[in-house]
Amino acid sequence: MTLPNLVPDIPLATRLFDTLRERSFDGVGITREAYGPGERMAHALVRAEAEAIGLECQADPVGNLHMTLPGADRTAKRVVIGSHLDSVRQGGNYDGAAGVLAGLATVAAMKRAGFVPGRDVTVLAIRAEEAGAWFPTSFPGSRGALGLLKPEELTIRRRDSGRTLAEHMREEGFDPGFVEAGGRVLSPDDTAAYVELHIEQGPVLEAEQIPVGIVTGIPGSRRLSAARVLGEYNHSGGTPRRYRRDAAIALAELAARLDDYWGELDAEGRVLVCTFCTLATTAEAGFTKIAGEAEFSLDVRSVDRSNCDLVFDRLHALVGEIEARRGVRFALGAEGGTAARPMDAGVQSGLAQAAATLGIAHKIMASGGGHDAAAFAQAGIPAGMVFVRNQNGSHNPREAMRIEDFAAATAVVARFVQDTSQ
Amino acid sequence: MTLPNLVPDIPLATRLFDTLRERSFDGVGITREAYGPGERMAHALVRAEAEAIGLECQADPVGNLHMTLPGADRTAKRVVIGSHLDSVRQGGNYDGAAGVLAGLATVAAMKRAGFVPGRDVTVLAIRAEEAGAWFPTSFPGSRGALGLLKPEELTIRRRDSGRTLAEHMREEGFDPGFVEAGGRVLSPDDTAAYVELHIEQGPVLEAEQIPVGIVTGIPGSRRLSAARVLGEYNHSGGTPRRYRRDAAIALAELAARLDDYWGELDAEGRVLVCTFCTLATTAEAGFTKIAGEAEFSLDVRSVDRSNCDLVFDRLHALVGEIEARRGVRFALGAEGGTAARPMDAGVQSGLAQAAATLGIAHKIMASGGGHDAAAFAQAGIPAGMVFVRNQNGSHNPREAMRIEDFAAATAVVARFVQDTSQ
Repeated sequence: MTLPNLVPDIPLATRLFDTLRERSFDGVGITREAYGPGERMAHALVRAEAEAIGLECQADPVGNLHMTLPGADRTAKRVVIGSHLDSVRQGGNYDGAAGVLAGLATVAAMKRAGFVPGRDVTVLAIRAEEAGAWFPTSFPGSRGALGLLKPEELTIRRRDSGRTLAEHMREEGFDPGFVEAGGRVLSPDDTAAYVELHIEQGPVLEAEQIPVGIVTGIPGSRRLSAARVLGEYNHSGGTPRRYRRDAAIALAELAARLDDYWGELDAEGRVLVCTFCTLATTAEAGFTKIAGEAEFSLDVRSVDRSNCDLVFDRLHALVGEIEARRGVRFALGAEGGTAARPMDAGVQSGLAQAAATLGIAHKIMASGGGHDAAAFAQAGIPAGMVFVRNQNGSHNPREAMRIEDFAAATAVVARFVQDTSQ
Repeated sequence: MTLPNLVPDIPLATRLFDTLRERSFDGVGITREAYGPGERMAHALVRAEAEAIGLECQADPVGNLHMTLPGADRTAKRVVIGSHLDSVRQGGNYDGAAGVLAGLATVAAMKRAGFVPGRDVTVLAIRAEEAGAWFPTSFPGSRGALGLLKPEELTIRRRDSGRTLAEHMREEGFDPGFVEAGGRVLSPDDTAAYVELHIEQGPVLEAEQIPVGIVTGIPGSRRLSAARVLGEYNHSGGTPRRYRRDAAIALAELAARLDDYWGELDAEGRVLVCTFCTLATTAEAGFTKIAGEAEFSLDVRSVDRSNCDLVFDRLHALVGEIEARRGVRFALGAEGGTAARPMDAGVQSGLAQAAATLGIAHKIMASGGGHDAAAFAQAGIPAGMVFVRNQNGSHNPREAMRIEDFAAATAVVARFVQDTSQ
């Protein structure tokens, strides 16, 4: 059965974007604190709208809000349209929220059209996705719902408040005991597919003038978050080249040569990123001194793990070589990282088919950042993502998105959900 | 007439070193604030000792302390043994003070031996040499005495107090009006030679196992003290290589490639140093971001100006190339620097002769750092320097010097002063 194309309720989304912006503008950008006032406000706003639409609304024990359009067969596996409502501090209005509002715009249109899906369609507003801004772990909201959050992670502390995840959950009225007890509310047994719309965050769609991206996978990473180079402070005038143990130049050489290597891999067509996010001499450094210490962080990502491994293999080789030649010592610290999460092939092809049906230009592309979809993929639920072309990156107040691009991407989601839930 | 070798009064110097350390230990290292309590204490201590020896003591209008052993002909040009008594914050005890105490040890021995020099011999305790720590200009004390300090420099502010040089001079009881009026107390018309003993500050004498250095010249410099690289903040995951404007990696490349070039010049035997003293992404940088801004400082020194020029020519070429390739912009800021000051050939050979006479192993070498001797050379007074082998560099609490090396270097100074002042 081919259904007529739904027209998602974009005015509804626009109105909610405006209200969200008004209520979370911090004077510079948008701040919606995870398990804090900004996120609480956004959940309340979205819940009120969902209730007005007539959706079944329920917060799960870790605080994610499930807004469900009941299907004909309530025992059939549901389709979930999800994203997060928190933001970084002084961030933008669309990162996260766009996916939730795309979901509401979709089910509102279904409801209005009298379309009863064959299975439940749930719009899921997820908690605490912005790990870099709030809780230093990946996706505690979605992983909490999926039974993937470890009880010991409840003790991580929010970067600004210093209070634990468990304390913040309790303060917002939720139940960290659910995590301790190993509970879950979503699994492959009850969920047929998860789809997440998100702004791209990168410049690719804008540069290539394509409104929509369909995501092949979420990259894995290998990371150094607190690496150091130890040399020796000396007088910059009085210390000839051969007597130096210069931490600053050792770090500069490492960074420049690892970047050269990335350039080679890039030219071979390998898709990865390699970023020295921070790189700095320390407070003890100063004019007329040779730096005795420097610090850096390194973020290497690829959907293909072997690319991260190539970079780290080269990193370790360069470290040994530079240590021997420059008389410094690298203390790389603990290595972190995440596994790559390919998106489900069936969901990818379903989204691509939806875009083709609608005549919407789209690019098949890897994600750059991590997203809640990674947690669903990890849990074994078929997951996919739709990217919206956006301007000025993300996680900053200048983040921008054209509403017509949002409408195009939402139409792809709506078509896919119609097809999948009938 | 060949005089018997004087044995400088090393126990006197040792006793004063100990008292200076006791009175200026800050809990970590030595702090003697320029035109502040630490320097004041040191001047009072040294003056009391000089008066006990029987020297004529007088502070000049900018606060330098002149301690004179009168010569047979009081109208003849004097010989000056000088150095400074301030220190950096948390520095070492010998940087600066060693030269003043070498002077006192010399004239104390002359006095005790009944040696009346043919001309006045003045031990000069100079103010405020440590520009990096206190007043951001070179040698205001010695330049104030030599008529080289510009009246507008009286308005520079001490880095810690924020008050001007004129205010600090007045607080210590001196007269900045003397500088405004263009006064001077030392000139080639009244001064035959200036000799300064100083710890090497670098590792060369220690590495080559030579106790004494005789200095060929004080390097000139070309400097960037507040240079920046401007790129664009972006998401480290979502921004492919070709869309980046990464300030951190642009700076790393500049530093690494300029250092490579220094390596080439060094291999050709060119004597210079090239130091990225600081190099850092800014506070806005952070994990999962590409750095949109970075800062650095650069200190290039050589006794041969053309070496500094070669490095800066390459710097500017690299900047243009990296800007074009990486889409960043360098804002190098104001360039600073000083002219190189060769030491007087006659003083150099006199010091070398003195060392040879005494059988003291010595190395002919360029200075790394700047010293008050540069101001005397600039004023046209024949100037020279003697370095003492020292350990652990300088400007740090671990700075060390063996007293037998100090004794050897002081003996060279004493022999030279005897020869020059007879």
